[in-house]
Amino acid sequence: MRDETSAGRVTLAQVASQAGVSLSTVSKVLNGRPDVSAPTRIKVEELLDTHGYRRSAPAAPEAPLIEIVFHELDSTWSMELIRGVQSVAKETGLSVVLTETGTRHSPGADWVEGVLRRRPLGVVLVFSTLPDDLKKKLWSRAIPFVIIDPAGDPEPDVPSVGSANWAGGLAATRHLIELGHRRIAVITGPEDMLCSLARLDGFRSAMGMAGLETAPALVRFGDFHVRSGHTHAMELLRADDRPTAIFAGSDLQALGVLEAARVLGLRIPEDLSVVGYDDIPLAQWSSPALTTVHQPLVEMAEEAARMLLRLRRADRADQSGRAEQADTRIEFGTRLVVRDSTAEPAAGGAAR
Amino acid sequence: MRDETSAGRVTLAQVASQAGVSLSTVSKVLNGRPDVSAPTRIKVEELLDTHGYRRSAPAAPEAPLIEIVFHELDSTWSMELIRGVQSVAKETGLSVVLTETGTRHSPGADWVEGVLRRRPLGVVLVFSTLPDDLKKKLWSRAIPFVIIDPAGDPEPDVPSVGSANWAGGLAATRHLIELGHRRIAVITGPEDMLCSLARLDGFRSAMGMAGLETAPALVRFGDFHVRSGHTHAMELLRADDRPTAIFAGSDLQALGVLEAARVLGLRIPEDLSVVGYDDIPLAQWSSPALTTVHQPLVEMAEEAARMLLRLRRADRADQSGRAEQADTRIEFGTRLVVRDSTAEPAAGGAAR
Repeated sequence: MRDETSAGRVTLAQVASQAGVSLSTVSKVLNGRPDVSAPTRIKVEELLDTHGYRRSAPAAPEAPLIEIVFHELDSTWSMELIRGVQSVAKETGLSVVLTETGTRHSPGADWVEGVLRRRPLGVVLVFSTLPDDLKKKLWSRAIPFVIIDPAGDPEPDVPSVGSANWAGGLAATRHLIELGHRRIAVITGPEDMLCSLARLDGFRSAMGMAGLETAPALVRFGDFHVRSGHTHAMELLRADDRPTAIFAGSDLQALGVLEAARVLGLRIPEDLSVVGYDDIPLAQWSSPALTTVHQPLVEMAEEAARMLLRLRRADRADQSGRAEQADTRIEFGTRLVVRDSTAEPAAGGAAR
Repeated sequence: MRDETSAGRVTLAQVASQAGVSLSTVSKVLNGRPDVSAPTRIKVEELLDTHGYRRSAPAAPEAPLIEIVFHELDSTWSMELIRGVQSVAKETGLSVVLTETGTRHSPGADWVEGVLRRRPLGVVLVFSTLPDDLKKKLWSRAIPFVIIDPAGDPEPDVPSVGSANWAGGLAATRHLIELGHRRIAVITGPEDMLCSLARLDGFRSAMGMAGLETAPALVRFGDFHVRSGHTHAMELLRADDRPTAIFAGSDLQALGVLEAARVLGLRIPEDLSVVGYDDIPLAQWSSPALTTVHQPLVEMAEEAARMLLRLRRADRADQSGRAEQADTRIEFGTRLVVRDSTAEPAAGGAAR
């Protein structure tokens, strides 16, 4: 099957010889075994990469595992994504391995070696940026990976699942405009996340299409958490010309807005309309229940897991691999869910 | 090492011979391999049990995995428990395998065979009842297991981690009494869960010690979810002699009470005080933030994971095993966290 001269495919024996190590050392590196020195590991990885080595799939039987990796497990989002992956795993008799890298950055070398040892069927990564060496390692071992990218900023050469942030911001804002609001504030997420910018641009487009202007003071950048929603809302609602509606950018920020309104004695929705984003479970349990943009987190995670299984099948059928994977980007639609936190503005306009 | 006549220990060869199968078939059953007929599997398991067979630990290298198993992944509780197990796993270089059995009952045979194949270091089970055959299978393979038992009803012969439900109910109720409330309602959980009954008994004891009586109509059984809190609160608060305070039995039920109060135009805490139970993250994000009984879910899960690692070490040091495991029951304390949903009753008493 393997021919040293055929179609640019390199054998492990060639890699071993060029690296000046034994074949068994190369095999250890491939399988993430710990008993190889760091310089040797790096040299072998470089040669595997230079030659574009890719393990025949399946070279060895995979374990019936799907991995899901988070920067940080939070109580709202993460659970929905875990449930999605878990549900596909259950259908197909697989188990789910969960890792939290514990930083805002990409997973470290330890994690990759662990994956190489475990040989899962595939890896679902919940973050946008993936360092090159990590991508190469997974690719050369024929371990498929998919990014769930709620931040809207996927690597171009990695298959990913996202959702329609711009359209979500547009729908939220149009809903408020249709109710009769004119003075509408927005609290989006961090300025360096594409999803924040996309939601904000959706907001601006809806305002622009309705011929409405937005004062700069009404545009706020938060961090998607409760406290920043609360802080910005306190400022917005204490101003003389306070807005009659706030598009809060995330459900957690919306909860912070509700609390600010309560502290200031404003009734929702009579005195202030609030729209969240995400539709996490607690959006329906808040008081009042939140009007919000539904982001289908469970379905996104299910799709990511199914994508892995498809990539693996395709990989078995066709060794061309890389190119085929790179094209895949699935974007889920978002939709507005109207509950009890939005209504027509009070007669005469609360802010006048 | 192994002697067929020593200390009642049976060899696998003896089991094979008594079952009329090959040694390799016995080994397949031990390792959860699928290619064994169901009757053979049952016969071999019975013989292993009859002879009290217990695999020498470690007979084969375990995988660096801890398993955590839920009936059902919900968005509030489960995440806290996962985070606890994950944090100990990260400290010790282990990965976490997550399973949802998808029923209110115990995990099925499929799941057990999967565990036997994966050979984790141990299993954390988040439910009270464990069928005998499952316990026997894990025990005979020297796979330690610990129950996290928030329901307060552990199997007597399984190591478990719980928390002090009675003391929590007592603390919640005393807080309301100290604030000056006399007409206090309670919504506890299902009548068939010990933790519901323990919280209710804590409530009754606090009331009794203060010389207060509780009308039967003020004692309610919910299901720990938002809707049942809402339904019971609507009934309680519409009555002529409505309570001035409600101990809601769970944070989710407390959210339902907040919503009922909002719908009925009652202010919290001015017109009604509410105490939750659990202190899940959203308890601090609700509006107003909930006074609640903190149940240390993350710490309970961390302790369960550490207990597994200790059991495994003890097992390696001492083959006596079973007896030592059975004694272990750790109960975590609960404490009241006072936030913004409780205050003195309105002057004159809102209900008079």
